Parts: sequence; C-alpha cells; structure tokens
Amino acid sequence: MRDPRHVAVAGVSGYTGLELARILLRHAAVEKPVFYLRDTSGAKCLGELFPQFRSWGEAPVRPLSVEAIVKSDAGTAFLATPHEASAEIAPALLAADLRVVDLSGAFRFRSGDTFSSWYKLPAPPAALLEQTVYGLPELYADALPQAKLVANPGCYATSVILALRPLAEAGWIAAERGVICDCKSGATGAGKEPRRDLHFAEMDENFRAYGLFTHRHTPEILEHTGLANSQVIFSTHLLPLARGILSTNYVWLEKPRQAAEVEALYRQFYAGRPMVRIWPAEQLPELQHVAHTNFCDIGFALDAAGERLIVVSCLDNLGKGAAGQAVQNFNHMLGLEETTGLQ
Amino acid sequence: MRDPRHVAVAGVSGYTGLELARILLRHAAVEKPVFYLRDTSGAKCLGELFPQFRSWGEAPVRPLSVEAIVKSDAGTAFLATPHEASAEIAPALLAADLRVVDLSGAFRFRSGDTFSSWYKLPAPPAALLEQTVYGLPELYADALPQAKLVANPGCYATSVILALRPLAEAGWIAAERGVICDCKSGATGAGKEPRRDLHFAEMDENFRAYGLFTHRHTPEILEHTGLANSQVIFSTHLLPLARGILSTNYVWLEKPRQAAEVEALYRQFYAGRPMVRIWPAEQLPELQHVAHTNFCDIGFALDAAGERLIVVSCLDNLGKGAAGQAVQNFNHMLGLEETTGLQ
Amino acid sequence: MRDPRHVAVAGVSGYTGLELARILLRHAAVEKPVFYLRDTSGAKCLGELFPQFRSWGEAPVRPLSVEAIVKSDAGTAFLATPHEASAEIAPALLAADLRVVDLSGAFRFRSGDTFSSWYKLPAPPAALLEQTVYGLPELYADALPQAKLVANPGCYATSVILALRPLAEAGWIAAERGVICDCKSGATGAGKEPRRDLHFAEMDENFRAYGLFTHRHTPEILEHTGLANSQVIFSTHLLPLARGILSTNYVWLEKPRQAAEVEALYRQFYAGRPMVRIWPAEQLPELQHVAHTNFCDIGFALDAAGERLIVVSCLDNLGKGAAGQAVQNFNHMLGLEETTGLQ
Amino acid sequence: MRDPRHVAVAGVSGYTGLELARILLRHAAVEKPVFYLRDTSGAKCLGELFPQFRSWGEAPVRPLSVEAIVKSDAGTAFLATPHEASAEIAPALLAADLRVVDLSGAFRFRSGDTFSSWYKLPAPPAALLEQTVYGLPELYADALPQAKLVANPGCYATSVILALRPLAEAGWIAAERGVICDCKSGATGAGKEPRRDLHFAEMDENFRAYGLFTHRHTPEILEHTGLANSQVIFSTHLLPLARGILSTNYVWLEKPRQAAEVEALYRQFYAGRPMVRIWPAEQLPELQHVAHTNFCDIGFALDAAGERLIVVSCLDNLGKGAAGQAVQNFNHMLGLEETTGLQ
Repeated sequence: MRDPRHVAVAGVSGYTGLELARILLRHAAVEKPVFYLRDTSGAKCLGELFPQFRSWGEAPVRPLSVEAIVKSDAGTAFLATPHEASAEIAPALLAADLRVVDLSGAFRFRSGDTFSSWYKLPAPPAALLEQTVYGLPELYADALPQAKLVANPGCYATSVILALRPLAEAGWIAAERGVICDCKSGATGAGKEPRRDLHFAEMDENFRAYGLFTHRHTPEILEHTGLANSQVIFSTHLLPLARGILSTNYVWLEKPRQAAEVEALYRQFYAGRPMVRIWPAEQLPELQHVAHTNFCDIGFALDAAGERLIVVSCLDNLGKGAAGQAVQNFNHMLGLEETTGLQ
Repeated sequence: MRDPRHVAVAGVSGYTGLELARILLRHAAVEKPVFYLRDTSGAKCLGELFPQFRSWGEAPVRPLSVEAIVKSDAGTAFLATPHEASAEIAPALLAADLRVVDLSGAFRFRSGDTFSSWYKLPAPPAALLEQTVYGLPELYADALPQAKLVANPGCYATSVILALRPLAEAGWIAAERGVICDCKSGATGAGKEPRRDLHFAEMDENFRAYGLFTHRHTPEILEHTGLANSQVIFSTHLLPLARGILSTNYVWLEKPRQAAEVEALYRQFYAGRPMVRIWPAEQLPELQHVAHTNFCDIGFALDAAGERLIVVSCLDNLGKGAAGQAVQNFNHMLGLEETTGLQ
Repeated sequence: MRDPRHVAVAGVSGYTGLELARILLRHAAVEKPVFYLRDTSGAKCLGELFPQFRSWGEAPVRPLSVEAIVKSDAGTAFLATPHEASAEIAPALLAADLRVVDLSGAFRFRSGDTFSSWYKLPAPPAALLEQTVYGLPELYADALPQAKLVANPGCYATSVILALRPLAEAGWIAAERGVICDCKSGATGAGKEPRRDLHFAEMDENFRAYGLFTHRHTPEILEHTGLANSQVIFSTHLLPLARGILSTNYVWLEKPRQAAEVEALYRQFYAGRPMVRIWPAEQLPELQHVAHTNFCDIGFALDAAGERLIVVSCLDNLGKGAAGQAVQNFNHMLGLEETTGLQ
Repeated sequence: MRDPRHVAVAGVSGYTGLELARILLRHAAVEKPVFYLRDTSGAKCLGELFPQFRSWGEAPVRPLSVEAIVKSDAGTAFLATPHEASAEIAPALLAADLRVVDLSGAFRFRSGDTFSSWYKLPAPPAALLEQTVYGLPELYADALPQAKLVANPGCYATSVILALRPLAEAGWIAAERGVICDCKSGATGAGKEPRRDLHFAEMDENFRAYGLFTHRHTPEILEHTGLANSQVIFSTHLLPLARGILSTNYVWLEKPRQAAEVEALYRQFYAGRPMVRIWPAEQLPELQHVAHTNFCDIGFALDAAGERLIVVSCLDNLGKGAAGQAVQNFNHMLGLEETTGLQ
C-alpha cells in the first residue's frame, strides 16, 4: 500500500534537490524519505555525499531507477531531474499509482507544442498535460488535493506571475503600451554544473543580462497572466549572489489609481495566502527578506500621476521558486496546513 | 599666469575623488596636481591619508578653501564636492579665471527650476547655467574647447543617454508605448559615508530597488534624450559589488527593423568616439568588461518581429560614470587626445 | 509563577538578537517569547521592525526595562545586550528568580580582574562570577541543569577551544613550541552599527587582519584550553562574507602520531555530542557546511612525520558562535534534548 | 636581429596571461607584442577573443608554436603556460637566442629532484636550472641584467619570502619554535578552468583551507628563507574574492625586540625597493591597498613582551604575485627603471 507521506526524491544532487532534502527531512508529516541519484558512488546515506547533512540528515540514498521507486512503498515522488528524465519517469510512476511533483519544465504547459518549441524536446502525451496541475498554489490550490501530477512552476515565472496576476485579473493593465518584466537571479538558479560563465572569478563583481527574448519561462508567464507575447518583454540577469530572484515589473495602468487602491487590490487577492506578503505602499522588499524562506514578497511604487506602476517581487529561487513551492504543493495535495515544514 | 595643465582637485576623500586622483596622477599632460580636502587631519600628502597612494602618488593635500585654489597657479579645477559646495565654489573659481569641471549635480540643467525641484536646493544663477556645457563628450565635444564650466553628467544618466540617444535622434522609438530604463549600480555609486543600508552585512547577498520615480538623474535623461517624463520609467537598483552600472533599456520600435540596421545605427552614431564600444548583434556586454575603464559598452537584443528592442549599456560608475568622464572632458577642453590618461 | 519556557529576550536589534528570535520562534518548547529593545519606535511586534518576521514571527516587542521583564512571568532571559548592559541587568533578573543566558562578555571569566583588564570595564561581583557557568555544553553540560547564570562563550573562543581542548586534555601538545590560532570571521561578527571599515565598498573584495594580540576572546581561550598566554598566538581576520568563522589551529605534537589516532582522539572526546562533527582524516570542513546551523565541524591535517598538526574548525558565528549555542545551553538548563530547535 | 623590447607572450588565455597582456600593452618600452595561444579559434587580435581589449588593446594573436616565436624577431618571451609546456618551450627559445621569463614552476628550483618530487613531473636539465635566476627582484636584482632564463616566483611564495627574509637574514627568528605561514588567496590564483569547487555558488559566502602540507610553493619558501621544512608550517586558504593574497606569518623572536627595531629592519632591508612598502608599526595592510597594483605591502604586530611577532604581507596574486613581477623582472633584464609600466 502506498502512503503519500512516504516520499521518494529523484535527483537530489543539484541545488534544488539538496534544498528539497533539507526541507523534507525537517517536515513533520514526511516519513521515511528516500533519495535517488544517478550516481551514488556507493554511498548509502546523504551525509556521505553531502557533508552538510552529516549527523542530522542521514537519510538513505539509492541509485536512481524507476523500478526501485515503484517497488518501494513511496506514495509521493518529487522529481528534481532534467526535463528529459522527468518526461520519462513521471508517466511510469503515475502508472504505478504514485503522485508526482515534477520540478522540471516537462509538464508546465497545456500545449505540447509550446513545450516542444521552447524546449526543443518531444512533448509529453497530451492526455498527461491535460490532467497536470500547474503548481502555483496561490492560484490553483483548489485543484491540488485531487492532482496526480503537479508541474512545479519556474522560479522566474513564479515571481512574475504572482506580481502581475492581480493586476491582470482586475483589468488594470494598459497592455497595449506593453509590460516589462526585468528579472535578476542569483547563481544557484543556473545550476551546479561547472561552466566558464559560472566560475567564481567570472561572476564575482560581475553582472550581466542573458537569454533575452529566448528564456524558457516566457510561455509560463504569458499563460498564467493572460498577456500576449507581443505585449511583454521578459528579461533575465545574473546577480553575483547565491540565492534569490528580484523582478521589477513595469506596467502602465489603464486609468489613474491611488497607491492605497493598488495595495488593497494585492491584499485582497492574496488574503488567506500566507506565503505571499504584500508590503505597505512606499516600502520595497529586498532579497535579504526572503532568502532561505518560502515567501514571495511584493511591493510597489506608483508615480505621482497614478499611471506608471512598478511592482517589485522577491523570492528565494530555491525556496518559493523551486523546492519550497514543491513542498507547498505537496502540503495541499495531502490536505496539510499549507505552511507545514516551510517556516 | 594660470596653466590649465596645473590642476586643483577639490573633495578628494570620496570614491570619485580618489579615482580622479588615481587617473590624474598618471595623466601625461597633468602637472603639479594639488588635492584639497575639507579635513586633511594635518596630512601633507595623499599617501598619509590613503595608503593605496603611498610611494607612487604622493601628491600634496591641502585644506579645502577657495582662496587657496585661487592663489595657486592652477588653471583647471575638478570639483568632486557635494552639490551645495560646488554651487558655492564654482562661481568663485570661474571669477578667478580657472576652468572648472564639476562632478556634482549643481550645474547639470539648463533650467534652475529643474535643479531646485529635484535637488531641493537653491538654483545657481541662470547666466551660469546658460554657459555651462553638459559634459557628455560623445554628444557635446564641440562645445568643450571653449567651455569655462563643464557639468559632468550623472553616472546612471550617462549609461542611459548613451544607450537611447542614437535611437531617439533617428526617430526610431515608439515613445507613446513607453521607454523603460532599468538600471543597476554597484555600491561605490552610493558614496563612502557609513550608512545602515550600505553596511557590508546588509548588502552582501542582497539586492534591492530604490529611488523609484524620484531619482535625481531623471531630468538629465529626459533633457538629453528628448523623451517626456510621462513616456519614461527610470529605475535604480543596488548591486552587491563595488563598481559598475548596467542599464537595461526597453524600447518599442516605431516600425520593424533588422538587427544589422540597429547595429549600423549605433556604429555610425559613435564612429570616431573611442570611449563607446558597440557590441556585435547577439552579444551582450557585462560589467566585467568595463570595470576599471572609461568605456561605455553597448549591446542589444531584438525580438524576432524586429519590434521590441533591449539595449544594454555598461560602464564603471567611477570611470565613464564620474572621474574618467571628467578627465575625458578635461582632455577636450585642453585640445588633448580624448583618451589621454584613460587607457 | 515563573515558567522557564516563557522566555524574555533583551536586545533583539543586533544580528545575534535577530538570530535568537529566529530560533526561539521555531523552538517547540518555548512559549510566549517577548522581545525587549532599547528603541521599539512604537512598534508592537517584530514584523513591524524587521520585515523578515512578517506573518510568521509576529511576537511582541517592548521597550527594554528590567522592571518589565521582572513583572512578566518569564522564567528565562536571554541577554543579547552590550557588556555594560548585561552586567547591570543580569543581577536584577537573577534576584527576581529568572534564569539568565548572557551572550555578552560580562560574566565569561572566573576572575573579575581578567574581565576588567581586557574589557576596560568594572568587574561584576566575584560571588556572581563564581556561580556562573561558562556555556560551552560540550565541556560543561553537567553544570547547566542547575545553572542560574550562563555566560555564553565568544564566537572565536568557541571555535578555538573546541578544536584544541581534546589535544590539550590528552597532553599531546608540545606547548613550549607554541600554538597558533589563525581565525577568520564573517562580517556579522563585527556587529550591525554602521562603521567606515564595515561599509560594503570597504569590505567587498577586501580581507584584513585586526586586533592582533589584543582581541578580547584571548583570555577565554587560555582559560579553557589551559595554555599560557606566552605559548599562544591568537589572531583574527575579517572575511568578505556574512556568516561563519574558520579557525586554523597549528600545533606541534609532543610525539609523533598517526592520523587515525588523532581522529580517534577527537571522536572519543566528542562522542555523544551531536553539535560537534568530526571529519574523517584527509577531509576538511568549509564554512558552507556550517552556515545557518549550530554545528562546529572539525577536521585536521597531519604532516608525514606525524609531528605538525593543523586543526581546522568551522562554525556559524551567529549559530554555534552565539545564538544557537545560547539555545543549546537553554535546552540543557531545562532538561530538553540538546538539539531541540537547532536542526 | 632580435630586439628584447619585441615581446612574445605564450599562453595568454588564463588570468595571468590576460593580466600580462594588460600590462605589456601599456608598457612604454614594449614594442610589437604578439600573443600566442593554444587555441585562437581563428581570431586575429586580442579583442576578438577577450572583449575587454576591444578598441585599445588590439594586438595580434597567433596559434602557439615554438617555430612561430623563433621565426619572429621577438627578443623576449613570457611563458604563461603550464609547467610541462614551459619545460618544453623554454629550452627551444633559449637556443634560438630569446630571453625567457617563465611564470610556471618548471624552473624555480636549483635541484631538479625538488621539482620532480613536488610537481610529479620530469625535471628540466640541471644545466638549465643552474643558470636560471629566481625572479624575485628585491633579492636577486643583480643577477637579472645577465639572465637568459628567469623563473618567476609563485604567488604565495612571493608573499611569504618577502615577509620573512629580512628576519631570517638578520638571524632574529627562533626557528626551533617553528614558523607558521597562514596564507589566504583570491580565486584567480586557482585558475580559469571551470571546476566544481570554483563554481560561483560553491565559493560565494564560503571559505576553506586546502593543500595543507602539500602545496607546491613550499620548497620555494624553504629555499629562499633558509628555513627547514620541519620548522615551517605553510598553509593555504581560498577567499571569496577575485584578486589578492594576504599572508599572516607567525614568528617567535630569538630575543625581545622593540617595534621600532622591527620596522627599522624592514625599512633598511627594502630601502631602494619601490615595490615593497613597509607599513608603520601598529598599522596593517589590507588587500584593498594592493589590488590591481604591483606592490607587496608589509606590516606587523609585536606583542607586549617583544617576543611574538606577526608579519602580514599583502599583494595582488596577478600583479606582484605573477604578471606584474614578470614585468618587473623584464625591466631589470633590459636595464629599464624597475617600475616601468607598473604604476
């Protein structure tokens, strides 16, 4: 019998997988977590591979194989694997009656064509995409308790969608003037694989833009804000720090508003959503307020005419942008308090 | 008899003043530079106050006073002083027949009202503002040889104006859709005075937006690009690094263009301007390419439809954004090669 | 009736106080924590003063006064106050029957003269010093359950004493050849008060030694390792990072040893002490392994002759070096599991 | 006819080679520098490969081959190549009558056995080692004008030898008590090749010791201070910053001294040596004072008894620790002012 509180984590070697391990090992409702890696180098427990887990987080590690997970009594699987691997593993686990939270991009889109054209990979089966829940609990919490497969959103996408959705849904955006999402991320968002441009001496004291007009989080943003590609410019930059995304979102309002109205709109939209914190008008969130947390903090500035609005959203790319959000989804799937293990 | 190559530098204690010292002490045409500070603490030469100058940069330091500068045979004065101090000192030095390069905001605007409303300080005399040259040599080099008073531009303003002016002058911008200038600066741009939010442990691993809709460089940008306030959003952010400004500028083009056209426009505009380097299409400049230089590097990305354009400009806020540009202006004033002392 | 699980925290505004708040607010056995500050600026709860606590850590804040704490039903007080303030507050709280964990240097020494000569402050009453327990649980856990007043050790001292005590106690050190403790700390160890040398642009890309032969943690190290001042050199350096102390300790052994013997000595000494993790021979701990934890990690390298030994110890200066250790002491005082709230 | 001012630089792609290019391109006496790389990717000039050189440093690049260098009219070659490559290239260039400054470890030792045992590589011919000058100009300037082959010292070794040699030569060290050299370096010292432990997210906010008892700079230190291996512990650490080495050197003096005596000893030893700056007693140099310079700054602290001495030396590992020192050697070889191109 599968127990959803028995969790399997596939792909624990990257920054997201390690953060997931850190959270799940302290999570009150999680039992017997097992960690699966492509290469365990003969290690039997986490601390042998990752010294930070020694003595307190000595959970078992095993070579990654679908069979091994299926044979275990795990009821929930987290996939912190590459897109291709997730696309292959998820259907097999679903077929064996596990519930799956996938942190890759493989299942994030209704349309397989969207996935194929942005990721240059074959699309997962349409039937699977149709039943997948996009795991942004502030928007889609209702669908999570029944979900079999949850696609955990992209880190940038989370920060932008949470910042723009209240305005979009309220019809306040003069979208024909264009919306700009200028996003900046820390280095853990770029992965753990050694690369020239992620070498310490190349990033230290450096800052750069990248992926302009081509970043794969673009279609998520369009789909969940309802904006069209021609109306949005989404850009990404690499900050010389480890953790955090700050997005500066620029919107022309369709008619003049007061700051108090804007604040009220956000507060109302996120009422009862403890993981989004709205800042008072005139105050702006900073990365230091969200690092090592699962919060998305949102603040804004409005010009004197009430027409130009800048919405600043901050989150930890490994927290609310990845592993933390995956656990937040898991909490909803199991009917637990949303914040369990996340504070 | 005043000799313009004899230079006086007022206000050498801040980061800009120190960078100015570093450049001028190695400048082939500069003779007998003297450095004036509010508080010399009894020191006689730079190395006593600032150990990095020991043994190679032992120029004299003296208590800052207009009288002392006037009595010297200096022909050119650099003012790296606060706005108020510059407003007071510059007229006195001009009256004594020195030429002045002022690095503060005091003389940057044609209109005294603009200065007063953004800086909350009394405006300098209109007659003085009228004859001041805005010291952006790529635009106003012709006026520099005769200039008595040069207002060195703001660091953010330099990066934005150099990025947008070619497009604005060519009439390529669909300004009614709005122009966004999302700028990020290193910490030396915020000054040397200890402050809670500039404390190491507050900035390290942190990133934040500030001064939204209120930054004093706004009117410079409007004046020298020809855009209206209602059409532009200019924002500023603080990076956890020491030196550098990267501006990401977003423009909707008034009609579709090819990347080659955009590159050609920039190359033509800055032909013969060695301090602006245009990057090939598809390549973007990074802060590491301009740190400790006087270059402004400009690159861009154009979307597939040729309508959305992102222009990225990079410079060192102490170099092309302040001290380096001041020396570039000085070179023009004296009829020297523009790059003297700046490579 | 005082309940020791009701805690009062005095001096929550600095980095140590904030870390203490972060830990205590998540501590399963702590009830109704109240935070006292010199200046609450009219705020009623933590989140108003420190945005990182918003929504999850909204504990009450009150103006700091001995009377207020005494009148409350708090049974335990943590003092994250300056030495002078602690010296004044602790006796009053003890008299009112609270138990006190003091994080300042005021009560760390048996001898009042030692305190006076290193801190240039009047010594606390000898009777009080005599009954104070030096709160290094790995050495003095037995004394904690009865302790009324616990002096939480210095951050540097903790890292050095834990590294050297096993060798000293075993008589393995050839102390006449001298012992060197070369320590490096992150910036939060230097406090939150803005200061020129802690300004971001002064510390970024910088590294420096300070306090040579004069650092106040010296007498703690001597007292708890049993080494004499003339035999030890203890030095401190400032790292361009926020959290962590790494101490490189150099010892000549009194006779040649094998690496396995050294490892065994440490493992035996710290058996049953979960907060000290001994690394296998040939592996060295790094700051990243202990940041945001309460662990002290210890590793070593021995030369081929078995005579020269380097012991590397790492901890988080705000964790095991301050707030975490204070809570570890608190756990012992209350008879709780040592690691409660610390993993 | 070979002209020593015509220089060839082999191996310009690493951090040392690039710094060498930066210095040589601005060096008044250097003519027609040509840069040779293993892989030019078809590029013809530096700026095509390294954007920071665009427009001002467009020197030719060519595929690295001994033949090409020999056929050119270059009179001096700088080798910023790996040990093995240098060992192969240098003899061929010397045979063709070029003078060589080698920045690798291949020729740093009198004894080929020393090289072989520390570098695990075949030793260069003894005859070549015998005529090689160890390029530490503060010690061996007299030998440089005639030198055919100069072995540029290691970066750590330079900082330690310059700190200890005055004491060793004066016989002030109680070496039987042991000398400790605790050294910390920035990341550019570890090379440009992507590596897990040099990945930004692994080094950022991290600090660690490495290479204990096995670092290859050890034999240089022993040879040029005259200390025995059993008397010295030399350790190395990696700092989260790009450039700089700070060495904290611990010495017990053979008899008590005054601080003034110590300062005088150093000042006398380095009189007429502009690249070593002695700091006044009670003041300590910091990395920020030497970054981007060719200086080695030395300061010290003496205990009250005058017996324990800490000598702190700072340099830029790419400047005085590598490329700068290579050029300083070159200046001596050609009879130029020692500081040419280095200020």
